[in-house]
Amino acid sequence: MGKKGKTAITPTRAEDYPEWYQEVVKASDMAERSPVRGCMVIKPWGYAIWENIVRELDDMFKATGVKNAYFPLFIPLSFLEKEAEHVEGFAKECAVVSHHRLEKDPEGGLKPAGTLNEPLIVRPTSETIIGDSFSKWIVSYRDLPLLINQWANVVRWEMRTRIFLRTSEFLWQEGHTAHATKEEAIERTQMMLQIYAQLSERFLAMPVIKGSKTPAERFPGAVDTLSIEAMMQDRKALQAGTSHFLGQNFAKASQIKFQSAAEIEEYAWTTSWGASTRLIGGLIMTHGDDDGIQLPPRIASSHVVLIPIIRKPDERSKVMEFTENLAKELRDRFYHHRRLRVEIDDRDIGGTRGWDWIKKGIPLRVEIGPRDIAENSVYVGRRDKPHNIKESINREHFVKKITSILDEIQSTLFEKALLFRNDHTISIDDKKIFYDFFTPQNQAKPEIHGGFALSHWCGSDDCESKLKDDLTVTIRCIPFDKEDKEGNCIYCGRPGSSRVIFAKAY
Amino acid sequence: MGKKGKTAITPTRAEDYPEWYQEVVKASDMAERSPVRGCMVIKPWGYAIWENIVRELDDMFKATGVKNAYFPLFIPLSFLEKEAEHVEGFAKECAVVSHHRLEKDPEGGLKPAGTLNEPLIVRPTSETIIGDSFSKWIVSYRDLPLLINQWANVVRWEMRTRIFLRTSEFLWQEGHTAHATKEEAIERTQMMLQIYAQLSERFLAMPVIKGSKTPAERFPGAVDTLSIEAMMQDRKALQAGTSHFLGQNFAKASQIKFQSAAEIEEYAWTTSWGASTRLIGGLIMTHGDDDGIQLPPRIASSHVVLIPIIRKPDERSKVMEFTENLAKELRDRFYHHRRLRVEIDDRDIGGTRGWDWIKKGIPLRVEIGPRDIAENSVYVGRRDKPHNIKESINREHFVKKITSILDEIQSTLFEKALLFRNDHTISIDDKKIFYDFFTPQNQAKPEIHGGFALSHWCGSDDCESKLKDDLTVTIRCIPFDKEDKEGNCIYCGRPGSSRVIFAKAY
Repeated sequence: MGKKGKTAITPTRAEDYPEWYQEVVKASDMAERSPVRGCMVIKPWGYAIWENIVRELDDMFKATGVKNAYFPLFIPLSFLEKEAEHVEGFAKECAVVSHHRLEKDPEGGLKPAGTLNEPLIVRPTSETIIGDSFSKWIVSYRDLPLLINQWANVVRWEMRTRIFLRTSEFLWQEGHTAHATKEEAIERTQMMLQIYAQLSERFLAMPVIKGSKTPAERFPGAVDTLSIEAMMQDRKALQAGTSHFLGQNFAKASQIKFQSAAEIEEYAWTTSWGASTRLIGGLIMTHGDDDGIQLPPRIASSHVVLIPIIRKPDERSKVMEFTENLAKELRDRFYHHRRLRVEIDDRDIGGTRGWDWIKKGIPLRVEIGPRDIAENSVYVGRRDKPHNIKESINREHFVKKITSILDEIQSTLFEKALLFRNDHTISIDDKKIFYDFFTPQNQAKPEIHGGFALSHWCGSDDCESKLKDDLTVTIRCIPFDKEDKEGNCIYCGRPGSSRVIFAKAY
Repeated sequence: MGKKGKTAITPTRAEDYPEWYQEVVKASDMAERSPVRGCMVIKPWGYAIWENIVRELDDMFKATGVKNAYFPLFIPLSFLEKEAEHVEGFAKECAVVSHHRLEKDPEGGLKPAGTLNEPLIVRPTSETIIGDSFSKWIVSYRDLPLLINQWANVVRWEMRTRIFLRTSEFLWQEGHTAHATKEEAIERTQMMLQIYAQLSERFLAMPVIKGSKTPAERFPGAVDTLSIEAMMQDRKALQAGTSHFLGQNFAKASQIKFQSAAEIEEYAWTTSWGASTRLIGGLIMTHGDDDGIQLPPRIASSHVVLIPIIRKPDERSKVMEFTENLAKELRDRFYHHRRLRVEIDDRDIGGTRGWDWIKKGIPLRVEIGPRDIAENSVYVGRRDKPHNIKESINREHFVKKITSILDEIQSTLFEKALLFRNDHTISIDDKKIFYDFFTPQNQAKPEIHGGFALSHWCGSDDCESKLKDDLTVTIRCIPFDKEDKEGNCIYCGRPGSSRVIFAKAY
């Protein structure tokens, strides 16, 4: 709640969730729309979160033997066509490069010239171009496993876009591995999903459910797609990372072969796995409130802002000296193996500084005025508490305690998100209840529905697609953690295996 | 020199320098050509160097207040047209996106569909698209300076490409800043050039000359372009980083205006500055020898490889235990604020392991066999010494000494490169000597010529362009460090200012 009982963000989540999201992104200064259709500009406060995600994931990948490399932005059309399901899946949203220069047109402007013999596709994902390299790099079983990751931009020409969640260009990592055996490739697929789950839960404070996709929801060309699914505050699901077991499909398409120890030529077994800037959208929708975003400390752009309070010019030097000394001392400290990130906001803009940082979601705000200095204390506000609850803390004590305060905020955010998800996840065995669960109770707020339904499914594409048509509900995943009890399909009533997660999704 | 007096790389530098370069890139496993015209695949050993460059530059940028952000890959054609010289400079080498999907053609293949209303250009550089954001972000003098950097891929459709040195797609950073005053913008332009010089000299061990470009060699649209220039082993110059003072040209093109403290609306003063994967090409051509690349320790993909020597199966567990313990101990140590990077090569491929690592340029090779273990020693080869000179060093002593050995190698590489450059840089005042200096003495080796000539220049585009036509020689820069003595233009004999650097260049 803002001053006078007003919230900093209008509309509130309850009033209009989709609009609230756009406003939070704007108010937090994390990103904005660009003049290029569907593309975003990631501003420093948002990009810093991505840098932190990159750092954590990169360390986790490397600890499992993965190495980074870089492959071309462009994919020849003929490469994309090598795997039939794959090209089918991406053909509708490809940016196509057709020319390689500009020349003067009769009106004095410029027009494309130098037509390419073969059109190039701006990579929507890189299985086919990386597969070509793998086919050259891999000769014998000694070259396996090959564990490669790429940090890159990709383009999928989306028709309806939303900042971070679905943009025509986004930043991501895509891992690609090749193995001598099916078992090893499956193990790698699971291992990388586990890493995404760790990133989500331990760093983004975003609880996730791990599971397998149904055939209809798989990555085009994959044998199996694993995903992590999170619940947003409008109770919709967000797929926050996927890991694909590709079998030998792409190995056959790209001729990735190796000579086995028994000197037999075999196709390799491959995997691919990715996570993107979409995670930042998930972060906002998991932890944002009606005053803006809340950043989990372990991934926050910055941990603490120091706000010097200077009412008279002659107070300035003393207050600034205290502030800068404190900043220096804090920056020398570590929080989870990274240095503390500290801002000083000495802008001369009156009383709105605190609210700017609340909207930006910084975990801690520290006000420093002459009276605090006289008492050798600082006046601390936490983003996970109401804005008007601030605490005076002895300066040395604060320096000593700051990392445990940050850990406390991190846990609070996770626990709150977990509670929310559990509150809105129920087992449903009755078709009418299921339909009611996913039918908005208030026509003015079509986004409000039940949440995640755990129900049985017979395994048929048909039932899945009928529910999608009727309710815009999909099977998010067949969770790994489940009771192994059979039951009747929620749609057709035929016997089905253990419960799957149904939800509306981003 | 390799075994039996042969070198590991064929041809040698003296035999065929351009071909030697291609072979070194291949033998070091750093990168390779891709199936996409002019694009490269950066393999893990090469990409690790880029990661190290990114880390060092990023830290240096941030220490000066720069923040990272990310802008769209695509630039609307109309944006590029906003600055006349700029679009002129890039029109001949633009990748143009014309369509946003693929559809089935009558023969069953796919063809581009969904024509875009306005073609999009894949960014060759981002002044115009970032300028658009700046025009919205900057309102008052309080928003200045705005100091932004982007790590990104860019595309310039080059006709003749060479891995790392000139590729259609490359990785780089581009910094863009806006300031309230001309003086401050010029200061920033110089500051960033200084950072590039530090990276080159202190990390890449590549001595550079700092200076200003002549008007003919400026970035399209810049008022002044500063550059660092290095000498390669074929005595040609490589431009290794540039920093541009853009005056108010791009501010006017993109309407980047601010209200001054005196409440007057003014155009901002902007700069841009970039360094790219081209630096890796410079590294190879500065330090490579006829056995492969030599990596300066402070930027090396890895510092040391441990090579266990196992001749009988029953020696294995003991040798591996010793090796892994040593690796662990080394990885716990720091070298210039980064952890030591350690490889273990236990491939069962006979005696070629050492040579593989020589070609890859790792600073230190450590052989570990049962006899070494019995003596508690390791058998160490340094890349900056001949391959057959190895030294037995007490294990504990080696662990203690390794960082000073690495520093010694770093200095040796820099000193050697500096000596080479100085040996091939001379002051020339006579036109005939100048022409001889740049005329190959041996027609079979057209690449061998004098090096850098320090000569006077009258300042006319005409003399500059005549020398370019006659000798393919350009003015690399007007160096900052110079004797301030006037003299006669090396081409026309008219009075000229202090000496400039003439050279053939990449």
